[in-house]
Amino acid sequence: MHFDIVVYILGKILRIEAYLMLLPALTGVIYRELECVSFFLVAAATYIVGTLMTQRKPEKFVLYSREGLVTVSLSWILISLIGCLPFVVNGDIPSFTNALFETISGFTTTGASILENVEALSHASLMWRSFTHWVGGMGVIVFMLAILPMTGGHNMQLMRAESPGPSVGKLVPKVRESAKILYLIYFAMTVVEIIVLICARMPVFDALCISFGSAGTGGFGVKADSCGSYTSLQQSFITLFITLFGVNFNAYYFLLGKNRKEAFKMEEVRWYLAIIAASVALITVNVRGYFDTLYQAFHHAFFQVSSIITTTGYGTTDFDLWPEFSKMILVFLMFVGACAGSTGGGIKVSRIIILIKSVGHELIHYIHPKSVTTMKFDGRPADKEMVKGVSVYLAAYCAIYIVSMLLLSLDNRQDFTTNFTAVAATFNNIGPGLSKVGPVMNYNGLAGGSKYVLMFDMLAGRLELYPMLMLFVPAVWKRR
Amino acid sequence: MHFDIVVYILGKILRIEAYLMLLPALTGVIYRELECVSFFLVAAATYIVGTLMTQRKPEKFVLYSREGLVTVSLSWILISLIGCLPFVVNGDIPSFTNALFETISGFTTTGASILENVEALSHASLMWRSFTHWVGGMGVIVFMLAILPMTGGHNMQLMRAESPGPSVGKLVPKVRESAKILYLIYFAMTVVEIIVLICARMPVFDALCISFGSAGTGGFGVKADSCGSYTSLQQSFITLFITLFGVNFNAYYFLLGKNRKEAFKMEEVRWYLAIIAASVALITVNVRGYFDTLYQAFHHAFFQVSSIITTTGYGTTDFDLWPEFSKMILVFLMFVGACAGSTGGGIKVSRIIILIKSVGHELIHYIHPKSVTTMKFDGRPADKEMVKGVSVYLAAYCAIYIVSMLLLSLDNRQDFTTNFTAVAATFNNIGPGLSKVGPVMNYNGLAGGSKYVLMFDMLAGRLELYPMLMLFVPAVWKRR
Repeated sequence: MHFDIVVYILGKILRIEAYLMLLPALTGVIYRELECVSFFLVAAATYIVGTLMTQRKPEKFVLYSREGLVTVSLSWILISLIGCLPFVVNGDIPSFTNALFETISGFTTTGASILENVEALSHASLMWRSFTHWVGGMGVIVFMLAILPMTGGHNMQLMRAESPGPSVGKLVPKVRESAKILYLIYFAMTVVEIIVLICARMPVFDALCISFGSAGTGGFGVKADSCGSYTSLQQSFITLFITLFGVNFNAYYFLLGKNRKEAFKMEEVRWYLAIIAASVALITVNVRGYFDTLYQAFHHAFFQVSSIITTTGYGTTDFDLWPEFSKMILVFLMFVGACAGSTGGGIKVSRIIILIKSVGHELIHYIHPKSVTTMKFDGRPADKEMVKGVSVYLAAYCAIYIVSMLLLSLDNRQDFTTNFTAVAATFNNIGPGLSKVGPVMNYNGLAGGSKYVLMFDMLAGRLELYPMLMLFVPAVWKRR
Repeated sequence: MHFDIVVYILGKILRIEAYLMLLPALTGVIYRELECVSFFLVAAATYIVGTLMTQRKPEKFVLYSREGLVTVSLSWILISLIGCLPFVVNGDIPSFTNALFETISGFTTTGASILENVEALSHASLMWRSFTHWVGGMGVIVFMLAILPMTGGHNMQLMRAESPGPSVGKLVPKVRESAKILYLIYFAMTVVEIIVLICARMPVFDALCISFGSAGTGGFGVKADSCGSYTSLQQSFITLFITLFGVNFNAYYFLLGKNRKEAFKMEEVRWYLAIIAASVALITVNVRGYFDTLYQAFHHAFFQVSSIITTTGYGTTDFDLWPEFSKMILVFLMFVGACAGSTGGGIKVSRIIILIKSVGHELIHYIHPKSVTTMKFDGRPADKEMVKGVSVYLAAYCAIYIVSMLLLSLDNRQDFTTNFTAVAATFNNIGPGLSKVGPVMNYNGLAGGSKYVLMFDMLAGRLELYPMLMLFVPAVWKRR
């Protein structure tokens, strides 16, 4: 481990975070809230620390795989530790554990909250909460790569470690350019959503927060009933945008360029839309009796399906009251997750496709043992390494899941459904689960230890397991 | 598909089943029960049908992979369809669906029951119920291979399709000899258990049924409280034997031969025993307060852990009342299952080892991307095909699990815990789950459709997925 380069990059990231805190600080100024002071203070302190850490330039600017992974996990832990301080200082979330939970939930775009009453928070804190979603959605490191001139050619290690999905396709040969293009698309789509929501007569503050939350597929809202009290039109626009933010961003890049047809050929995007369509249809029929009109059933089913498959976690109704079949579909979608290369979490549609295809391939191999068929993904042959990578990912995923459930069950107050869906909702970066962590409940009732387990799960889920697992490998920490 | 050879083998198996039914028939004669008539009648009819089916010898005695797999699944379905008839005819289980559920549960060594009161059954029916466990434990086809002189060299296809675990090691070069050795060990261990239990003053009838149930790691008992009313000594012996029947039978073969040391080198067996020891220790501490003495807590923890990890499903207490942590460990053990090459179900310890090792291997690969390390299993390098096979198995396993849960949830009366553990308990061939299918409950409350889903799961679990999945591939059914 080359510690000097890790410290240097962490310092750069802290300086970025200091700038990011100016948004909630200014929000506080606009609303004339005393809470804005805490954001100015923490931002200033963070900037100073970050500057000190970047004083000593590392001798060699070479980033190996292990430094890349550890840098990513440490930077996410660090920005969360710093990011929760304003909540503690200004008293909006006095408990450090709760504030850290809320901040990790924000940056990882989970949206699981410990707040009993979200409407009691200051505007500054609400803005910061939602803004962490937006920052975490595309990734802090991708952001750093986009705006900072980094020397050395190993930035791809960092980007790959932070990006969701089984394989990162560089859009253009240069990493920095790819990062810039991604953030530009992300920024533009967010701005469009803000404008559309304001045009649909949503208050500006709400429009900003909800747009940040849906762009990052996070799920923090500013109302006690999440999105329940917005108008039907506003809800429909939110549905549309969260669905769009769950699409692989490469599709948008293709749409903007010359290869427009490529976007429609993307297998993952087609599957993603097909899964949404099928789930909405099934749930609409299943919950028809719970609503006055068929359209209403469809409207809420569509909202909830998009919200869950993209791992956003907004709600318009308490789906814990829906029939078991609909709940089971939603739980299933929690695991599927959005497309790779989107801001969504979960296992990712492309991994699911590869897994299903490999099972089909195995069956064919049994029927025709001597045939030599190749599995294809996106029209290209899926090489063995890709299949192996996805399978091992699934195994690691199951292992973390099991250990998390065992640790949660040490607190005897929660039932099986609560433990199972609490892990599902945090590990897949969704937010609400079922039973005691259902859409109208919150995570404050859990024991402190359980909260730290779920914080780990949120980070592991957002960073695709390995960066967080790497922290437990002693060999990583050897100085070299 | 060569239909003639499939029909021929199925006929052979029916004739064997006719002989097997003589045991419950004779039991009925001894207890002077009228129910014995039903067994004689069905046995006679089965023998005639089986003889008719074997009249026409197939021209070519070549068995390809697809015929092998389909023959296995069809023969298990057929023996269950026939095997449930005596229950229906003698009125012990009047409903055909329930009788079929109970019989499939028996042959697949699941032990999930639809009986409200097991003690109301005739001795003949109780004996048949338990005997199906014994037959299904080692497999009907292995039995056929052991006793029938089959010509043609492709019997390995059949044996591989029916045997549990990721890879079948032939004990000796000839398939028939391997099958004979396995059945001899199995038979001898069962006889020893019967004698030991009788010596421990268990009634002969109970000793026979409980031994059949533990040898096949099934779980059907003859008392309403499963094993709760047996003496502590009798329970301890049952614990010992179910633990032994969950061990890879190759270990016993090694112990009997010259390579005695090989048995102790088997990685899977050591892991299996380590998992049991750790689980017993954790649960003993966790349930200490539920029992008068530490020994009692240990006694019941050990019984339950062995019963669940070997997928037997016997109970001494209602573990649904235990604390969440203990229940979670038991649910986790449901999935682990016993060793490959034993009579137990579940994912199998060897697959778990391979999965865990492949995750570790992936992490090392991240740290040292250029290093060329090979994963080892049992001291030998684990080839890529083995790892791929296990991973695809896990994917297929998850797929069947999800579809089953979705189908079960169509019946809105059951909660998430019931649906989740009902699938876990049948798919892994255990028997009792939690909540409404807990150890003191039964499966009769489920809807008819749900029962058929679980029947499929029991068969798919016992036959290691592919033979049952194969039935849904249209290409398999093409005549050639």
